[in-house]
Amino acid sequence: MQVISTRAELQAWSDAERAAGRRVALVPTMGALHAGHLSLVETARAHADQVVVSIFVNPTQFNDPKDFEGYPRVMEDDLAACRAAGVDVVWTPQVEELYPDGAPVWVDVEEISEPLCGQNRPGHFRGVTTVVTKLFLAARPHVAVFGQKDWQQLAVIRRMTEALGFGIEILGGETVRESDGLALSSRNVHLGPVGRKQALRISESLSLAQQRIDDGERSHAVLCEAVIKKLGEATQARVDYAEFRDPTTLELAGENLQGPTLLAIALQFDADPDGQGAEVRLIDNRVLAVR
Amino acid sequence: MQVISTRAELQAWSDAERAAGRRVALVPTMGALHAGHLSLVETARAHADQVVVSIFVNPTQFNDPKDFEGYPRVMEDDLAACRAAGVDVVWTPQVEELYPDGAPVWVDVEEISEPLCGQNRPGHFRGVTTVVTKLFLAARPHVAVFGQKDWQQLAVIRRMTEALGFGIEILGGETVRESDGLALSSRNVHLGPVGRKQALRISESLSLAQQRIDDGERSHAVLCEAVIKKLGEATQARVDYAEFRDPTTLELAGENLQGPTLLAIALQFDADPDGQGAEVRLIDNRVLAVR
Repeated sequence: MQVISTRAELQAWSDAERAAGRRVALVPTMGALHAGHLSLVETARAHADQVVVSIFVNPTQFNDPKDFEGYPRVMEDDLAACRAAGVDVVWTPQVEELYPDGAPVWVDVEEISEPLCGQNRPGHFRGVTTVVTKLFLAARPHVAVFGQKDWQQLAVIRRMTEALGFGIEILGGETVRESDGLALSSRNVHLGPVGRKQALRISESLSLAQQRIDDGERSHAVLCEAVIKKLGEATQARVDYAEFRDPTTLELAGENLQGPTLLAIALQFDADPDGQGAEVRLIDNRVLAVR
Repeated sequence: MQVISTRAELQAWSDAERAAGRRVALVPTMGALHAGHLSLVETARAHADQVVVSIFVNPTQFNDPKDFEGYPRVMEDDLAACRAAGVDVVWTPQVEELYPDGAPVWVDVEEISEPLCGQNRPGHFRGVTTVVTKLFLAARPHVAVFGQKDWQQLAVIRRMTEALGFGIEILGGETVRESDGLALSSRNVHLGPVGRKQALRISESLSLAQQRIDDGERSHAVLCEAVIKKLGEATQARVDYAEFRDPTTLELAGENLQGPTLLAIALQFDADPDGQGAEVRLIDNRVLAVR
């Protein structure tokens, strides 16, 4: 496994691979790799000859400096995990390389970046789309893989890729969960025992919504109320959002659900009452089958 | 000479050229090609094996719909000029291909896009940087050539290319002038005979500033006054701006000029008093040698 640090080196490597007729896949990560990331690596492997993983904690997508500082950084573990997973190249750029001095340059996706996390994390998606543009331009991949857990991010990146014409295929990797249903996230480590237990209300509310739909319920308002009630059982948390939207355009669902519908949820947890854990914001989602 | 219309076809062509070890140059144009453009083609030829000219009147960089509608469109002449100049590929995308339906996506360069034309043409540079990103991603060139006449555009694109990390070399082509000094522009055709004569005050004021500097003048205020006075002789026009700035960062020059200094000028012409010609905005600039 090669570890590459400079952009120029990565571009030259990718150009040579492309010239040799090999397909290159990119899995952008912020490190702190877990089984969810490794499943993205597997998907990448199935679609390309060479798999690049980038590890970069991107400062511009953190609206909360505490979240940025506290974000887990475990480079040695990450490199070992990549090696074990058969990754070909790990790219570990420095902040100064991706954000050189001078006038700031941003890539902005309007509309679909505005609701949900866009509303709760001002500037977040501008940071994401800008850094992903830089990662794409450095790795020059044929295909890039992003987790479906960050569904809005995936939708925003799909839109950006199409509109700017990168010519890169975007794949969404299925969410990997703990055996009890909690979606894997690098931020889960911040949960105290009480928060960890209550965090199950998220995946439970996703299942509950599907169950109610399977039982015949179609009313947006009724389903929303059921979900909010279930989430309310997580007393250590407050609901940032719980919304039913179109999976592609992210427009709000109508009065009665029709066709596949995204249920997107974000919860903001406090530390446990006894002080264990720390503040942490978790998101999850499910595309509900509505027949 | 190949004429390519779709983005996918151009990307495939460029990938094949790159894989074969040939260097690709891109000259982005809005058509209505004149000797200035052809000189950019020559520069491109000197730096690459294959020269691509894109012809696309980009709607998003026109802040004035009349300017967009009135912009000269002469595709047959342009193709003939490219053929005669030995261009390898002409790319003629349609608006729908570069701006597919869906959420708008923008590339924004802050700060250096704000003064000068940025102030007088709101949204102009956002349109330029967005379309140039799309052209770069489609043509995948090693080098791209832009005219120095649009100095701020060149500075903005250099900054964008560096900050996003395209890995593309940006070259500025020298301004080509009529024998009397008027900088070539596709918009010159709109000048009536009176406006055409008065438009000479622009290049004259650039020379005047250099002359005064060569004679020992360094005062920003004095030089500015001399330039404004000269431009005032163009009674059919009003001055949008005439400013002394740093050639790279576009920051305003200090009280006394030091080192190479950009003098950037924009004039807005009315139609001639007898109704000949039409409204037209002309820009020109010179990097003044200050020793």
